[in-house]
Amino acid sequence: MRLSNNFTKTSKDAPADEVAKNAQLLIRAGYVYKVMAGVYAYTPLGFRVLENIKQIVREEMDAIGGQELIMSSLQRKDTWDGTGRWSDDAVDVWFKSKLKDETEVGLAWSHEEAIMEMMQQFVKSYKDLPAKVYQFQTKMRNELRAKSGIMRGREFVMKDMYSLHATEEDCDAYYEQVIEAYKRIYDRLGIGDSTFVTFASGGAFTKFSHEFQTICDAGEDVLYVNADNSVAVNEEVLEDATSELGIDKDTLQPVKSAEVGNIFKFGTEKSEKMGIFYTDSDGKKQPIYLASYGVGITRVMGVLVEKLADEKGLVWPTNVAPYTVSLISIGDAGIVKAEQLYKELQSKGIDVLYDDRDERPGKKFADAELLGIPYRVTVSDRLEESGEYEVQTRASSHTEVIKQAELMSYITR
Amino acid sequence: MRLSNNFTKTSKDAPADEVAKNAQLLIRAGYVYKVMAGVYAYTPLGFRVLENIKQIVREEMDAIGGQELIMSSLQRKDTWDGTGRWSDDAVDVWFKSKLKDETEVGLAWSHEEAIMEMMQQFVKSYKDLPAKVYQFQTKMRNELRAKSGIMRGREFVMKDMYSLHATEEDCDAYYEQVIEAYKRIYDRLGIGDSTFVTFASGGAFTKFSHEFQTICDAGEDVLYVNADNSVAVNEEVLEDATSELGIDKDTLQPVKSAEVGNIFKFGTEKSEKMGIFYTDSDGKKQPIYLASYGVGITRVMGVLVEKLADEKGLVWPTNVAPYTVSLISIGDAGIVKAEQLYKELQSKGIDVLYDDRDERPGKKFADAELLGIPYRVTVSDRLEESGEYEVQTRASSHTEVIKQAELMSYITR
Repeated sequence: MRLSNNFTKTSKDAPADEVAKNAQLLIRAGYVYKVMAGVYAYTPLGFRVLENIKQIVREEMDAIGGQELIMSSLQRKDTWDGTGRWSDDAVDVWFKSKLKDETEVGLAWSHEEAIMEMMQQFVKSYKDLPAKVYQFQTKMRNELRAKSGIMRGREFVMKDMYSLHATEEDCDAYYEQVIEAYKRIYDRLGIGDSTFVTFASGGAFTKFSHEFQTICDAGEDVLYVNADNSVAVNEEVLEDATSELGIDKDTLQPVKSAEVGNIFKFGTEKSEKMGIFYTDSDGKKQPIYLASYGVGITRVMGVLVEKLADEKGLVWPTNVAPYTVSLISIGDAGIVKAEQLYKELQSKGIDVLYDDRDERPGKKFADAELLGIPYRVTVSDRLEESGEYEVQTRASSHTEVIKQAELMSYITR
Repeated sequence: MRLSNNFTKTSKDAPADEVAKNAQLLIRAGYVYKVMAGVYAYTPLGFRVLENIKQIVREEMDAIGGQELIMSSLQRKDTWDGTGRWSDDAVDVWFKSKLKDETEVGLAWSHEEAIMEMMQQFVKSYKDLPAKVYQFQTKMRNELRAKSGIMRGREFVMKDMYSLHATEEDCDAYYEQVIEAYKRIYDRLGIGDSTFVTFASGGAFTKFSHEFQTICDAGEDVLYVNADNSVAVNEEVLEDATSELGIDKDTLQPVKSAEVGNIFKFGTEKSEKMGIFYTDSDGKKQPIYLASYGVGITRVMGVLVEKLADEKGLVWPTNVAPYTVSLISIGDAGIVKAEQLYKELQSKGIDVLYDDRDERPGKKFADAELLGIPYRVTVSDRLEESGEYEVQTRASSHTEVIKQAELMSYITR
């Protein structure tokens, strides 16, 4: 994209009402627009980041047999009554409204009950199991406070997957497959090394659920990890987990962390409470095992900002960045060469943000840093003569002058 | 996809509470699941159709310089107060709810005011214009009744584009570009020949807005068209339009039609009511020209069903179908060959729905027809011996036995 066509603008000042670094930087860089506390619009730059994160998650969910669908946001009271979760006392984040005939409706903050209710129509026999479905859904949660930017929104995008199984063994085996898929997701998002599968507090059926926690100063959680990073336990279950696992809790050290995923075995709890059963090969009614697997897409975007940004601005991992290359020209010959290079890189499938604005080089360099594009390529009169480009890697600030022929291999390493 | 992995099932009976053909067929075929009147979930088959429609629209919007973003569903009262459209008296389709501190919020049924409010932050000078943005957004409209299936939902997906301009001339010129882009969209959706740009009732500024109307028995509108289809006028503005255009209204014939798009020039109305201005090259404050351009994505899917389906079930245009080929095997040798062909077609980028279920051929044929996949390819013991396949084209029911080597060219004509 030509930056002159981008309608958002960068700003030097953070908005006064934002305390979270992720929101401050994303707003300054023009990636998000604040509608109200906890509610953001994603401008074209931010939208591209979200779509890149979604695509990585989508590919990994498809690879383990997930089928993508889209549920509704509007929910019927009946759907949630069976498990007692329609009540505002049980679930305090419902947004509710009414149809014209005064029928109450809710805006989905989760789809666990909704999925089970739908599946009831299709899952009759053991032959219909397992089933594995997922969606990218805009969830609504009426949070009392919303001060964490896009890390905890009143309206946010979540990937939620649900798997239904005939037996506990089958459910457990798939649950392990999802854990491996999630590890691949965080690797591809560039935070694999600092993301742990942790024991977290569970529900009525499982003693522990699992969270994926990324070490991050802005995190709301505390993680206890051992020296070789092979064990990580959430603070809230430290006592129980260490005694259960036979670990000396003094060998674990606390670090701040942010949840980037949460997976959960419900066992047959939902099935039994909602009265949804399948028929086994002997013709007997049996309850269905359910597990759910969430990744907060907008939250992950926020964690990436909190974890990777520096004093100059955003720093995006290459797989997630809205563009791979930020292209800047200096001098008249530079403009001609930059126009050529812009077309050439695009024809090779490289996403380029070409700063064709009538601005000083200093402003362009500062904006490129704030926007966090992985590689800045500068084309100048001087370098043009020697057949070279200056390439700066955003994450390391490492700057190098390279031969023009080396550029493609440099930025696709 | 292997049909054995698809969790939805086909059904012979239409649900008793659905009067619309589109909902009846889509539910019977397992493309949608009804949550409540006017609210549907899109199962993997239906989801693929929606995504295919969206991708066609996306490509055409990108081609005319549109920038994709995503706004929020939650809306602040302030945003809509300036134009008087927060009031339930002015707009009777709001779903409203409240934050914990009793602040009223609404669920977006449109984003016209929201876009203008956001743009105010970025559009300061004539240099910042024009701006062209669009989104695929889930809209909520609290309809009194919802009996048209996915053609008029309480929750539905819309592509809404907005363009902001410094001058009326620039706005008019872009508006014409969008009309041409819309024509390409309906052509690619397979309904170009029966879709007309019509004069419709406008707002305060423009005398007429334009609708795209597709001739369709299930349509809620009546269109008056002339003999060579060069003029089409909505019934609601027949008197005004014919007198304005100098057309004898007796030369026009009525046909039933469904709206598949609606485009609108607001002039400077929103800008002035909301107090949003830009600075021109002389340093003077000037109002912004706004136009909006909608395509109801889920509605279009419903119209395609109403218009193209026959007594055997759904009929999807190739560009929109969830899969291009429905693959069926008969006999043991057929299974071996079908497995090979399944992999071969997929490796060539053809989307195949392979009916690997343990079902009678008659059931498989009936389901293939109900599902509406453009080509049914049958692999049987008998044809295997002669190196041939049977190919049936869903839309025409034309059946042909072709040489195996001819298949790819046959289905990609």
